[in-house]
Amino acid sequence: MVQAKTLTEKTISKSNQIIQFNHPVKYRTSEWYTGHGEIVASGDNRSFEVSASYNLKATVKLVNEILNPDNPTLAEIYSRRGRCVAIVDLTVDELYGEAIRYYFEHHEINLEIMPCRAWESDKTPQTVNNLLAFLGKDGCDVSRNEPVLVIGGGVLSDVAGLACALQHRRTPYIMIGTTVVAAIDAGPSPRTCTNGSQFKNSMGVYHPPVLTLVDRTFFRTLDTGHIRNGMAEIIKMAVTDDPVLFELMEEYGSRLLETHFATLEGDEELAEIADEVIYRALFSYMKHEGTNMFETYQDRPHAYGHTWSPRFEPAAKLMHGHAVSIGMAFGASLATEMGWLSTEDRDRIIALCSSIGLSVFHPILEDMDIMLEGQKNMRRKRGEGGLWAPLPTGIGECDFAQEVSSGLLQQAVDKHKTLCVSLPSGGEGKEMYLSDLGLA
Amino acid sequence: MVQAKTLTEKTISKSNQIIQFNHPVKYRTSEWYTGHGEIVASGDNRSFEVSASYNLKATVKLVNEILNPDNPTLAEIYSRRGRCVAIVDLTVDELYGEAIRYYFEHHEINLEIMPCRAWESDKTPQTVNNLLAFLGKDGCDVSRNEPVLVIGGGVLSDVAGLACALQHRRTPYIMIGTTVVAAIDAGPSPRTCTNGSQFKNSMGVYHPPVLTLVDRTFFRTLDTGHIRNGMAEIIKMAVTDDPVLFELMEEYGSRLLETHFATLEGDEELAEIADEVIYRALFSYMKHEGTNMFETYQDRPHAYGHTWSPRFEPAAKLMHGHAVSIGMAFGASLATEMGWLSTEDRDRIIALCSSIGLSVFHPILEDMDIMLEGQKNMRRKRGEGGLWAPLPTGIGECDFAQEVSSGLLQQAVDKHKTLCVSLPSGGEGKEMYLSDLGLA
Repeated sequence: MVQAKTLTEKTISKSNQIIQFNHPVKYRTSEWYTGHGEIVASGDNRSFEVSASYNLKATVKLVNEILNPDNPTLAEIYSRRGRCVAIVDLTVDELYGEAIRYYFEHHEINLEIMPCRAWESDKTPQTVNNLLAFLGKDGCDVSRNEPVLVIGGGVLSDVAGLACALQHRRTPYIMIGTTVVAAIDAGPSPRTCTNGSQFKNSMGVYHPPVLTLVDRTFFRTLDTGHIRNGMAEIIKMAVTDDPVLFELMEEYGSRLLETHFATLEGDEELAEIADEVIYRALFSYMKHEGTNMFETYQDRPHAYGHTWSPRFEPAAKLMHGHAVSIGMAFGASLATEMGWLSTEDRDRIIALCSSIGLSVFHPILEDMDIMLEGQKNMRRKRGEGGLWAPLPTGIGECDFAQEVSSGLLQQAVDKHKTLCVSLPSGGEGKEMYLSDLGLA
Repeated sequence: MVQAKTLTEKTISKSNQIIQFNHPVKYRTSEWYTGHGEIVASGDNRSFEVSASYNLKATVKLVNEILNPDNPTLAEIYSRRGRCVAIVDLTVDELYGEAIRYYFEHHEINLEIMPCRAWESDKTPQTVNNLLAFLGKDGCDVSRNEPVLVIGGGVLSDVAGLACALQHRRTPYIMIGTTVVAAIDAGPSPRTCTNGSQFKNSMGVYHPPVLTLVDRTFFRTLDTGHIRNGMAEIIKMAVTDDPVLFELMEEYGSRLLETHFATLEGDEELAEIADEVIYRALFSYMKHEGTNMFETYQDRPHAYGHTWSPRFEPAAKLMHGHAVSIGMAFGASLATEMGWLSTEDRDRIIALCSSIGLSVFHPILEDMDIMLEGQKNMRRKRGEGGLWAPLPTGIGECDFAQEVSSGLLQQAVDKHKTLCVSLPSGGEGKEMYLSDLGLA
C-alpha cells in the first residue's frame, strides 16, 4: 500500500494545475506552422480541459512572368531543397508544360510533375486519392516540410489543396492560380474540398497555401468567357468592401475583359490598372477570409452572391460567375427592399455586372421552393445561428441579414424581375450557361 | 482619369496597414471553435501577409455507466437538440446497442444511428465516404454545430473523426472510447486518419473530439489480449511522464489486466486504482498531445515506442501494443547505451512490460535494413528536422534523440537481445501476433 499513499499525495499536487507548453524552436515540424496549448485539471481527478491553438502564416504576392528563367522566385524556394514536386492542371501542362520544365532544368532543380485533369467532374475523392498516391510513400515521398507546387485553376486548388491537407495530416503547398478565380479567390483560399457522392464541395478542410503567387500572364490563354466568370468574384469584393475597386471596375471592367487583363494588348497604364484591380480584389478578399481562415465566424462579406446560388446554380446549369452575379444583383434588390441600400447604389451594382456581360436575372429565382431550400441549406452550412446573408449597405460596405422571411423573399424577387426585364439584355449575360463554354 | 487619381490616393492610404478582426460572438459558426487573424500589407501594393490562428477547446471526463438511464451526461448534451446522430462500432452495437437505444428513448431524444464495422481492413477512404453519406445532405444532414456521437475503439475514432473533420470542413464530435487504447489514447487524440492504398494512416487531419467520455464499464466485454495491448500505451506515458503511474502499474498492472480494470471483479479500492491509472494516463497523454494538438512540434513523449515500430509492426504481423512494447523496451536499452538511462531503470521498464505479458523483444529488430528504413520514414514524417526519438532519461522523464547512427543502433540491438534472451519469456509476450486474436 506504499504506492497508494504516494499516489494520493502526488495526486493532490497534480490537481488544479495549469500546464502550458512552449515547445523549443528546434522541434518545429515545419517552418510555417506553430501552435500552443494549455491543459487545466479540474481538481477532482476526473476531468480536465484543453485549450489548443494553431497558427499559420500565408503570403500573397503579385509576380510577373513567373516562368521566365530570369525570374528567381521559384528557384529561390526550391533550389535549396534540390527538387520541386508539382501538381499541374492538364490544360496548363499542355500550354505551359515546356516552359515549366525548362525553368527548373535551367535552375538545375529536379522536377517531379503530375499533370492532373481538373474539370468539375474530376472533383472527386478518387482524384484526391490519385494525388495522394503521387505525393505519398510509393510516389515522391514528400516530407511534411516540403511545399508542393500547385499550378492551375479553382478545381485543382480545391483537390490538390485537400490532398496536401491529408498528406502527413498537413503538407504545405504553394499555389499559382492560372485563372482569374484561382488568382484572386480560390487560390489563396483555405477552403479545400471535393464533391462527395451527393453534392458540391461536401467534404474538405481548411488548408491555405503558404504562398500564393499571382501572375496575370496566364490570363492571355483563357477563354474570354472564363475571364468574365472570374470577374464576378472581383465585383463581389468591390461591392462589399472596396469602393475604389468598384469605381475601377466601372471605368475599366470592359477593357480588362477584352484585353484579358492587359495581356492581349494594352498600354502600361492599363497593365498598372490590371495589377491594381487584382491586388485590391485579393487584399479585400483575404482581409476577410484570411482573418477568419478557419471559418469560425459567419460575418463573411465574400459570401455575397453565394447564399441562394449554391442551390440554383446547378439546377439552372449556370456558369459559377453568372450564378454569383445573379445572386449579387438579387441581393442588391433585396437590400433595397429592406431599406439597407439606396436605389441608386442598387442600380449601379446591377449596371456594373451587366456592363461586362454578367447575368443579373434568371427565371429560376421565381421558384420559391428552390430559393427557400437554398436558405435552409445555407443556414445549416453556416451553423444554424442564422442565415447571415451578406447584403450591401452602400458601395464598398455590407451587413449580414440574420433571416429573410418567405414574404420578403417573394417581394424582392418580384421587384428584381421587374427591374431586370426592362434592361436591354433582359438580365441575361453572355455565355451564361455551362453548355456555352462546352462544360455541360 | 478621375478614378485613376482617386485610386492612387486611396492606395497610399491602404499601404502598410495592419488589419485585425475580432468577429462578434453572434456570428460564431459553432460554440467550440474560435479564431483570429491579421493581415499586413507590405506597402508596395504587390504583396501582403496573413497570420491566422484557430482555437479549440476539448474536455476529457471519466464517467461511470454512461448508458445507465440515470446518468444525465448524454441527455444533457442532446436533449436541447432533440436528436443525437451516432456512429457506433458494429461489435459495440451488438453488445450495447439495446442499452444505447433504450437510453435515448428513455430521454425522448431521437436517435439516428449508423453501426459501422471497424476492423483494421475497414480503415479505408471508402468507409470514410460511407460515413459522410450518413452525415451528409441525403443522410442526417448534420449541421456544423451539431456534435456527432462516436462510440467505439481506435479504428472507429480514426475514420469517424476524419469523416467529421471533412463534413462541412469541420463538424464537432463526442467520443466514447470502448477499448483501453481508445479510452486513453486514440479517443481524445486529434489525429484522425485512414489507411491509403499504400501504407498505414497515410491520410488524415487533426481534429480532436470536443468531449471525450471515458467509461471503463465497457472494458468488461473486451478480450484480455486487447486489454494488455492497450496497457502498452499506459506504460508509454508512465515511463516518459509520470513516475507515480509507473509505480501503480508495477504494483497493480497484473491485477488490472486480470479484472479488466476492476470490471470483472475487484473491491472498491481496486476500482479507485483503475480510475486513477486511467486518469493519470489520460492526463499525461493530453498534457503533451493536447498542448501540441496540431503536431507543430516533434518533442512528443507519447511517440515513445513508436519510432521503429511503424516499420516492423506490420512486417512481423504484431499486435500494436506488443510492437510498441518492443519499441519501448528497445528504446530503454538504447537510452542506456547512450548514457541517458541507468541499467536499473532500464531493467524496471523491461520488467514492467514483461510482467503483464507484453513482448519486449522480436528477432525483427536484428534486421538492420528494416530498422534503418524505419528511421528514414520517421525522419520524413517528423519533418526532416531530426529523428526526435523520445527515449527515457529516468522513470517518468524523457528526452529526444536527434539522430541514431547505424553503429549505435546495431550495438543497442545486440545489447538488448542479450538482455532479453536471458528472461524466462525470452522476450516474447502473450498473444503477441495479430493471428493470436484472430486478426490476421
